[in-house]
Formats: sequence, structure tokens, C-alpha cells
Amino acid sequence: MTVSSSLQTSAELAGWARGLEQSALQKMLVATARPGIVSFALGMPAVELFPREALAEAAERVLSVNAGALQYSPPLQSLKQHVRELMKQRGVNCREEQIFLTAGAQQGMSLLSRLLLEPGSSVITEELIYSGFQQVLDPFQPQVLTVSTDAETGMDVDAVEKYLNGGARPSFIYSITDGHNPLSVRLCSSKRTRLVELAEEYRVPIIEDDAYGFLCYEDPLPPLRALSDVSVFYVGSFSKILAPALRVGWLVVPEELILPLSVIKESTDIDAAPLSQRIVNAYLDTGGLRGQIDMLRTQYRLKRDTMLRALAENFPDTARWTRPDCGFFVWVELPSRVDVDELFRRALEDEHVAFIPGHAFSVNKKRSSSIRLNFSHPTTAQIEEGIPRLARVLKSALS
Amino acid sequence: MTVSSSLQTSAELAGWARGLEQSALQKMLVATARPGIVSFALGMPAVELFPREALAEAAERVLSVNAGALQYSPPLQSLKQHVRELMKQRGVNCREEQIFLTAGAQQGMSLLSRLLLEPGSSVITEELIYSGFQQVLDPFQPQVLTVSTDAETGMDVDAVEKYLNGGARPSFIYSITDGHNPLSVRLCSSKRTRLVELAEEYRVPIIEDDAYGFLCYEDPLPPLRALSDVSVFYVGSFSKILAPALRVGWLVVPEELILPLSVIKESTDIDAAPLSQRIVNAYLDTGGLRGQIDMLRTQYRLKRDTMLRALAENFPDTARWTRPDCGFFVWVELPSRVDVDELFRRALEDEHVAFIPGHAFSVNKKRSSSIRLNFSHPTTAQIEEGIPRLARVLKSALS
Repeated sequence: MTVSSSLQTSAELAGWARGLEQSALQKMLVATARPGIVSFALGMPAVELFPREALAEAAERVLSVNAGALQYSPPLQSLKQHVRELMKQRGVNCREEQIFLTAGAQQGMSLLSRLLLEPGSSVITEELIYSGFQQVLDPFQPQVLTVSTDAETGMDVDAVEKYLNGGARPSFIYSITDGHNPLSVRLCSSKRTRLVELAEEYRVPIIEDDAYGFLCYEDPLPPLRALSDVSVFYVGSFSKILAPALRVGWLVVPEELILPLSVIKESTDIDAAPLSQRIVNAYLDTGGLRGQIDMLRTQYRLKRDTMLRALAENFPDTARWTRPDCGFFVWVELPSRVDVDELFRRALEDEHVAFIPGHAFSVNKKRSSSIRLNFSHPTTAQIEEGIPRLARVLKSALS
Repeated sequence: MTVSSSLQTSAELAGWARGLEQSALQKMLVATARPGIVSFALGMPAVELFPREALAEAAERVLSVNAGALQYSPPLQSLKQHVRELMKQRGVNCREEQIFLTAGAQQGMSLLSRLLLEPGSSVITEELIYSGFQQVLDPFQPQVLTVSTDAETGMDVDAVEKYLNGGARPSFIYSITDGHNPLSVRLCSSKRTRLVELAEEYRVPIIEDDAYGFLCYEDPLPPLRALSDVSVFYVGSFSKILAPALRVGWLVVPEELILPLSVIKESTDIDAAPLSQRIVNAYLDTGGLRGQIDMLRTQYRLKRDTMLRALAENFPDTARWTRPDCGFFVWVELPSRVDVDELFRRALEDEHVAFIPGHAFSVNKKRSSSIRLNFSHPTTAQIEEGIPRLARVLKSALS
């Protein structure tokens, strides 16, 4: 449903907000909460892999020490130290003064956009990107200059250069460098170098969304931030490597952006250390995160391989899919005559299987016959059961 | 310090963000964190009154049951039921479908403003208001139509009528009905009725900031929301009655605003139940909040009385101050020849006492010789020690 233009209340909504609809992801969060659904829809981490006990112990330590953990207080310096160490593991050297703590990656991207965008701004993104980032852009209604994505090498960096060379001066370039959502591709090494060179040459910053970057299943590449500390604004998160309900993430940005970010965050939710930051900090004090990430890589690799095998065994030859080396998703291109919305309805109703139609991620609302499958949240048993069920609906649609 | 216009990075900040300065409150949070300072500056609740043990037990229950509490999930329905009961205690009948969970009152106000404001908007506020709300307005740069505040009866509602009658069509009216921050006055009963009548007549909604409303020390009046469920958008918070680091608050709004608020919140920080919502919910399950609020009222009343007594005994006859019946502050008007910025510097340096100069709350940056004193955070012993110290600096400034 959309917001009616004739509200019962006396409120007049801002123009951009009048046509707001529930997002595809929020609909999914509700729809797939029904019991009995095998969901390949949302990008949720696996519940069974959360370090629940260790986090419970961390919470106990935080709340047993003193009540000060419940008070307003400045952003947690010790957590910034931990993030600095974590970034080293990701191949990035940064200083604590460049780290800004957020309520998850989404808030990081939202704050950066509010800092950088104003009416009349433009941005460069790929045509298919994380829909939550599109929501971040909505209120500013910037001109979105889109480029395509190569299935092997990632974002079309030549097209980025063409825009810049042609005079475009976007507020930023948005890059999901590793574990691309939804396309599950990674930007190849030479394009990384070139993209950062362009950013520096044309003085256009890059927002690097690295929500999945710690979950690489093959040899990881360093993120763009490793190549430039002035032109790349890095967005990180504990949601996928620890637990989403903590709502803790971080930015690594030039030091001069910390103050304005802090003022914007203060106006958003008071920039004071919430309890969850202290719980994450106490967990990190134990040194357990490195082992946790290793375990996640092993388990998610197993799930990925289970899904790839199930797809090979059950999906028709006319379908093609990616082999993700990072992140949570397999991107499947179906024969062009498949109506993926109809496929979605029938999969949910007839076979109780869910996925997300690819066009939900299209900036230009381009129709396609692609779908995004998540392999991190279902168990391997559910993957082995759900993919054949989905294949049955697909074969019936193709027959 | 302000953000330099010549950034080292390649980033071009949005116009409104270029002059951002650290807020007075953030500066205070840092300055008063020094040991040995008696601070009457920030509006922080008393650490010693937090129900630490009960919250620790609540966290343990949440994290011992199952790891699902750590996952993304829709806003917590059971917490909305608790909020509905809590609103009844505040004299407000509402439905769960009208309740929207937020990361504290600040986020509630931020989301409502983003929903209602656009370039060219205007709003009506008092001349002296919570500075965090002014920060919320900043990015939208609305025309702010200000009215004065009577020390006995609150907001000048006749002046509001004059604006509306003169053709002004603001996006909303902002009201701190009870426990006014910083003026510690409450809106009298007849003005409450009149203000809501005006809102309905002119179809202009009221944002009612009730962050302190549960902490009334005399007979409480029902908030504006009790008088209208279509024209009053109510902002509530657990920060002052439970603990700020939880970052949990709520809105009570017409049901049709829930969906667009949810979409905006999703773009801000993912509108999924964070762990802290579950901890608050588990605490509320015990039924302990009513007793907690009663205890807070008793203890804060005691602190208020201690401060009023200390002021009477130590401050010069030429100073005047309010007797707050709700909230956390005493508003003191000093003789007009006192330079309160200079007083602040000397108080901090010579006597290690902090407060906030009144003009920090002025929408129009009007100078004045008023100061805001917080009595909730210091202990009674600190109040008895700090007020004479502040009085010494003041007397020296007046001599």
C-alpha cells in the first residue's frame, strides 16, 4: 500500500515521502516470518552461528561492573581501538581518529549521504545495488548516473571514467567492492586501482560499502580504503560477523569528517555510546572475533557449496548463476521468458519457498529475469530441500 | 572548531553542513567527563538510580532463551503493548497500531521532521527550546516562527494563533508541554486546550516532546496527545525513566504515518528490533517500571528541593529562578549585567562547576543573562557543595 494523498490527520508530508511504499525487504521480513517457509530472500546471517553465549557473558560483564554503562557517554574509545585492529586484518591501516561508530552499516551510509548530498546533487552507482542504499538516496532525489556490472570483474570503471571525463561531478561514487549485493561479484584488482585513481584525479569520494567484506571464501583482496585514505569513505558493520540486533557498525573516513558526522548523528539519535557498543567491546576484549570469523567463513562456504551443488543438480541448463567468493548471495539469471514476479508468487504459495526478484535492486526499475538467492540464513538441509522445490516451480513456469 | 571550507579530502559537503560546529551539549559531555567537576550542565539522569540489576537480569533472560534475539526482526509487538499500558498511566489512550518504536526521543523527532519538512517549510516553536531539536531542523533550514514563553503558563498560544490567523501554514508546532527544557515550566491547562483547538482548526500538527513527562513532582496534567489523536504526534522515551544507553523510545502517531515512518527508519538504521528493545521489553515484563518511576519522582523531587534551598541560601537577591514541577532543570535569570559565557569559564576554571548558558537554547541566538541548572544528575551532596561554589563566582562577577 502507498500513503494516501488524503491523510486523515492534519499532516502534510514532504513531497518525496508521499509515494512511500513498504520496501521489498520489509515485506519479506514479515512474509518469511511465517513458519514452514524456506527463505532464500533476505540477507540475514545464520542464527545458529551467532556467538550467543559469549555475547551473553559480555553483556553480563558490562552490566555487572557499574551502572555507568547505562548512561549517556561519548563514543567508546576502546571500541575504536578494536575496530582499528580489525581493519588491519582487512588489510587497512587507519588511525582511531578516523573511526566513527555507527548503529550499523545502514546508519553509516545514511549519515554520509546526509553529509554529502543536497538538492541538485548527482551520484554514480551500478545499475543493480543494495536496495537499502537506494532508500538512503530517496529523500535527496539526486541524479543517479548508473553504470553496468561485469559478472566477472565487477563495476564498469570505464563507464565511470566516461561520466567524469564528460564533466559529471557527482557527490560520490558508491561501490560494493566485495561480496556484491545483489550480484555476488567482486571488483577485480586492476579495476580497484583504476577506480581509486579516478576518485583522486577528479576529487570525487568513494563510499565503499563493505558489509560483507570480512566473509570472503577465497583469497581476499584489500578493499579500496587500503589504496587511499582521503578519497575512500569505508563503511563497516558487526551485523554479519557478530549479530545484527546489536546495531553496531563503523566508518573509516578522513579525520576532518568526524566532527560533522558527530553533529549529524547527534541530531539523529544522540551520538552517545549505546549499551550495545559496550557489549560488542566486551566481546572483542575476549579476542574471540578472529575465531568467530574463521568459523563463519567455513560454515558459509559450506552453505554456498551446498547451494551451488543443488542448483547444478536441479536447475535447468538454461539458467546461469554466479559462484560467489564472498558474501551471502547467488545471483541467478533465468531464461528471459520467465516472469520472476509470477515465479515468486507461485514459489511462495505452491512450494513455500521465497527469494527476491532481481529487479528489486534495479536503480532504474529495469525488468529482468534474474533472482537473488541467499545461502547464509537457511541451514544446509533447508537449502537441499528448498532448491529442488524452487526448481519445480521454475520448470513448471518454463513448460 | 568549525569544518574548514578547504577540506583535505575530495569531499564537498552539503551546504548546510559546511558551518557545523560541535554542539554545546557534546562539548559539555566531554568537558564534564573530567574528574572533580560538579556538573549542573547536561540533562542526564542519575546513575545511582538506574535499575542496573534488574536490567542485567533482563539482558540475561533475553540472551539465555535463544539466539533469535540477536537477529534482524520486525519491531517488537510485545514492547508496543507495554508502551500502550505506559501511555495509559500518562492519561493517554492509544492503540498498538499507533505506536512506532524508535532509538530514543531524538530519533523520534528526527524521523518526524524528515517526514514533514521540505525546502521552504516553516515551523512554529518557542524562542527557547531543547537545542537537540534545533539540530533536527538544521538540514531543512525551515523558516522558524518563534513565540515567547510565559514563566508561569508556558508557550504564548495567542502568538501561535496570530501566526496561523495571519496566514502562516507551518509544517508543525513544536511543544515541550511538561518539564520544559530549558525553561522548566509547564503549559497550563487552558492553553493546552486552546493549542490543540488551533492545531485542529488550522490543520497543523503538533509535535509533542514528552521526554520528561513521566517525571512530574506535583499533580501531573495529561499531555496534549490526550486531547487529540489526529493532530498531536507524541514523542516518548525510556532514556529518563529507565536508562539512556538503551536508546529506546517511541512515537504515538496516527496509524497512517506508521508505514512512511518505518520506511524512513529503515533507510536510517534498518527498522529491525535491536537487542536493547528486547532488554527493555523483558524488564517491563517484570512490572517493575511503575515502582521505578515512583522512586525516581521521590528522589528527583528531593534533589530539586535541595537545589532550590541551596539557591535561596546562596544566590543573590537579584537572581530569580523557576520552581520546576516536572523535569530535570532550574532556569535562573541573573542580573542583566552578568556575562554568562564569562561566568561559565570562571565557574569551570576557578570552582570546577559547570552549567549551560541560557542562550545555547535560543532559536534566534538571542543573548541573555540566564543559565540552565540540572539537578537530576548530581547527588544531593554535590548540589549542596556546587551551588555555593557557583554563587561565589557569581558574586565575584557582580562585585
